[in-house]
Amino acid sequence: MSTKTVWTLSELAEMLGAELRGDPAHRICGVHTLTVAGPDQLGFLANPRYMGELEHTRAGAVLLRPADAEGYGGNALLLANPYLAYARVARLFDQTPRPAAGIHATAVVSATARVDASAAIGPHAVVADEVVVGPGTVIEAGVVIQARSQVGRDCRIRANAVVYHDCVLGDRVSLHSGAIIGSDGFGFANDAGRWEKIAQIGRVVIHDDVDIGANTTIDRGALEDTIIHQGVIIDNQVHIAHNVVIGAFTAIAGCVGIAGSTRIGAYCVLAGGVGVAGHLEICDKVQFTGMTMVTKSITVPGSYSSGTGMESTVSWRKTAVRLRSLDDMARRLRELEALVAKIQPPAEPV
Amino acid sequence: MSTKTVWTLSELAEMLGAELRGDPAHRICGVHTLTVAGPDQLGFLANPRYMGELEHTRAGAVLLRPADAEGYGGNALLLANPYLAYARVARLFDQTPRPAAGIHATAVVSATARVDASAAIGPHAVVADEVVVGPGTVIEAGVVIQARSQVGRDCRIRANAVVYHDCVLGDRVSLHSGAIIGSDGFGFANDAGRWEKIAQIGRVVIHDDVDIGANTTIDRGALEDTIIHQGVIIDNQVHIAHNVVIGAFTAIAGCVGIAGSTRIGAYCVLAGGVGVAGHLEICDKVQFTGMTMVTKSITVPGSYSSGTGMESTVSWRKTAVRLRSLDDMARRLRELEALVAKIQPPAEPV
Amino acid sequence: MSTKTVWTLSELAEMLGAELRGDPAHRICGVHTLTVAGPDQLGFLANPRYMGELEHTRAGAVLLRPADAEGYGGNALLLANPYLAYARVARLFDQTPRPAAGIHATAVVSATARVDASAAIGPHAVVADEVVVGPGTVIEAGVVIQARSQVGRDCRIRANAVVYHDCVLGDRVSLHSGAIIGSDGFGFANDAGRWEKIAQIGRVVIHDDVDIGANTTIDRGALEDTIIHQGVIIDNQVHIAHNVVIGAFTAIAGCVGIAGSTRIGAYCVLAGGVGVAGHLEICDKVQFTGMTMVTKSITVPGSYSSGTGMESTVSWRKTAVRLRSLDDMARRLRELEALVAKIQPPAEPV
Repeated sequence: MSTKTVWTLSELAEMLGAELRGDPAHRICGVHTLTVAGPDQLGFLANPRYMGELEHTRAGAVLLRPADAEGYGGNALLLANPYLAYARVARLFDQTPRPAAGIHATAVVSATARVDASAAIGPHAVVADEVVVGPGTVIEAGVVIQARSQVGRDCRIRANAVVYHDCVLGDRVSLHSGAIIGSDGFGFANDAGRWEKIAQIGRVVIHDDVDIGANTTIDRGALEDTIIHQGVIIDNQVHIAHNVVIGAFTAIAGCVGIAGSTRIGAYCVLAGGVGVAGHLEICDKVQFTGMTMVTKSITVPGSYSSGTGMESTVSWRKTAVRLRSLDDMARRLRELEALVAKIQPPAEPV
Repeated sequence: MSTKTVWTLSELAEMLGAELRGDPAHRICGVHTLTVAGPDQLGFLANPRYMGELEHTRAGAVLLRPADAEGYGGNALLLANPYLAYARVARLFDQTPRPAAGIHATAVVSATARVDASAAIGPHAVVADEVVVGPGTVIEAGVVIQARSQVGRDCRIRANAVVYHDCVLGDRVSLHSGAIIGSDGFGFANDAGRWEKIAQIGRVVIHDDVDIGANTTIDRGALEDTIIHQGVIIDNQVHIAHNVVIGAFTAIAGCVGIAGSTRIGAYCVLAGGVGVAGHLEICDKVQFTGMTMVTKSITVPGSYSSGTGMESTVSWRKTAVRLRSLDDMARRLRELEALVAKIQPPAEPV
Repeated sequence: MSTKTVWTLSELAEMLGAELRGDPAHRICGVHTLTVAGPDQLGFLANPRYMGELEHTRAGAVLLRPADAEGYGGNALLLANPYLAYARVARLFDQTPRPAAGIHATAVVSATARVDASAAIGPHAVVADEVVVGPGTVIEAGVVIQARSQVGRDCRIRANAVVYHDCVLGDRVSLHSGAIIGSDGFGFANDAGRWEKIAQIGRVVIHDDVDIGANTTIDRGALEDTIIHQGVIIDNQVHIAHNVVIGAFTAIAGCVGIAGSTRIGAYCVLAGGVGVAGHLEICDKVQFTGMTMVTKSITVPGSYSSGTGMESTVSWRKTAVRLRSLDDMARRLRELEALVAKIQPPAEPV
């Protein structure tokens, strides 16, 4: 959260490296969509599809590609990537509380933990033996960091998240509330029908600049570590099982589940609800559309899907019944083809 | 939780507006299914399918539709909606602890928070700066309410739930344990392969009488608010992304995921495991059956589905293989139709 | 966590009941995969598929089936089930912190709770009125156990998990962080469009030796109890609705959802992402492959599946379109068969 609340267009232009067109002294104290933004707010046109909104916007200024600025008479900040510029501007108006450095009186911090003086430890947080917390890091209320785990610099661990023992978080890692890092992987040996637990003695290692959503869980490795590489972004309610490796800059949307020992490449995108089976290798730059069931390794970059399209329930029921006789249909089609092939086509009329 | 533990049938009849048939002085101290209920318990027949159980029930009295009461000789409370009556009666026997008003000694409540004197704040709860907590509201152990959020009257926030800053909860809102309200939406701008976080500066606004299940997450808006309208009920482990709007009295079952900026109408029902893509508009009174993948907007009320029926794994494997050649089958069927059309049917026998 | 850190092969052989081949005095201080294990670590060959790794392993000794030991010259511990032996050995090297018995100064424990002297209650944990905590049980930081619940002996409740009131946990039950036991089932009666909450007055009863993953939720029963039988293992992010019964030794992988009143048999395996509709009966020894949608009861043990195979998104789109005309294709195929049947096959060439 910034303490400055008003910016002039010239200040913003300089910050963003934008070409300013219009009044450099115009004051901006917020950012919003083109339809909602008022005269003291910045709007942005990231998707040419919304070009029509430019005409009616009341925004005090607009972030625009030079090519889209033709015919727009208002204040404008021209730059190549308005969406990225919006990301940078939004940060200025973020009201997320920024706690002061120091350890709250109710926090329980082990005498053997090393907490940087510039870090903030919130109410009722627990920082166990030999934990390391880096400079500028914020550990919010109710967070538990268990023995020997390391949290880098400028991390933000939101309220009630948990990091189990011996895990490693790099710098600028963000964990949202309810995220659980380092819980036991689902490893059991079967002993004549009974399940015997396998102690999970690997760790979770999270590299720099990783963002992890609310109630997401990442299990510790069985023997090897579970590894999340640099710049990975993970949404809410994602389940990442033991020994999984996620390549750098991969994006994982909500409700995805990734089973044990699977390796996902870099620059992949997993849309919401995707399920990935265990022990697979997914190469770099693969996209999965929503709810895809991934049961095979992938070696060719590109987009992959599964599932059936939505219909009215009435017609879906028919489709579902037919599907079960698809194998039969295929066989009958083949027989019919053979039969017809044997029938001489009638002679053409003379 | 009520402190009264025994009711006479006449008391219950009056409370429910039911017609009493039988002994008005009969004492009831519980409610159960027809098969289990004993002589001091109330049973209920909500579904005519279970009519057969009426014959053998030992229940001290039964909630019944008048039409279903024919031939039932025991004590009965006759009313139009026995299931609704059961809902009202069950409340009498609810043993959920009801903490006394006041702030627990271990709670951390900011000096700038305004907590109504009739509210209860549990052990180790954290109520941050400028938070407002209304009359009769219960904030249980370990709950964190971050800066400037407002919680209305008669709400119940169960243990270890989290409400981020600047969110609004109306009256009689229930959050179950582990529910996270106002975590950041999954908004990132791509900068040459790297993800740049977009500060999420909208709020979550939850209207009156909303019920939210355990470990459900509702992200704050990017710019606009995420809005849950009046009377919505949401089960466990549901993920609601940023900018989503849920219309009044819609029901969302467990494990549903709704992607960003989608608007769901009023009086909809989403069964378990449904996934809804982003930026869609779903009109009022739509039902989705379990695990439906919703990828298009819907303008016509009714029931919608997707997915394939369960088979033995052996036959499912065949179906799955055939499915991948479905396009080919369709083409061959069309060719065969053309071929057969060219063949003159043989002359009818004279 | 064990305090002993080094074992000789003869000690391990005795512990595991294995036949030792090689140097009985060889010292082992860890366990790892065949590829990673070094001279002071134990490796194991559980799956003959990895036989090739045996040749190059640097492991100080290997857990092996006698039949797989042919031609392996290194130290070996021979036994029938190397994977089970690995499970037992891994426990020796588990570094999970083991807190000392006693109640942390910051824990809030009701005067009417009965906590065994050998149990450990962590920082900021809350143990409410009339709760019972058995010998050897560990309740970690931030855990909340609500009124009258019972936790057996040698249980481990990880940080920030929650057990609602009146629930019962047997002996050696493990709850991972964020797990919620006993939240309200999703029960509402519809009153002219509005939802009226049905108080959930059943309990959750968890039998001995049950393992429950991070952020898993198990709702309390509406009237009857929700029951998890002995030896069941449940992974992360699983949702188990009210009145569900899970039979003994069943395994439930991540992201599974089971709707209300369904009964799952014993010795079943539900792979990740499976969804089970409500009010079903699944017999013993049923397996569901990943993401199966279960909408019917099952009376025959075996493996069941649903869903479609993954394709490139381009070909998947074609398949999805064709699927919607499957009913039409089936009808046309039947018509064509009838038409062809009417055409006399040409006489065989003489």
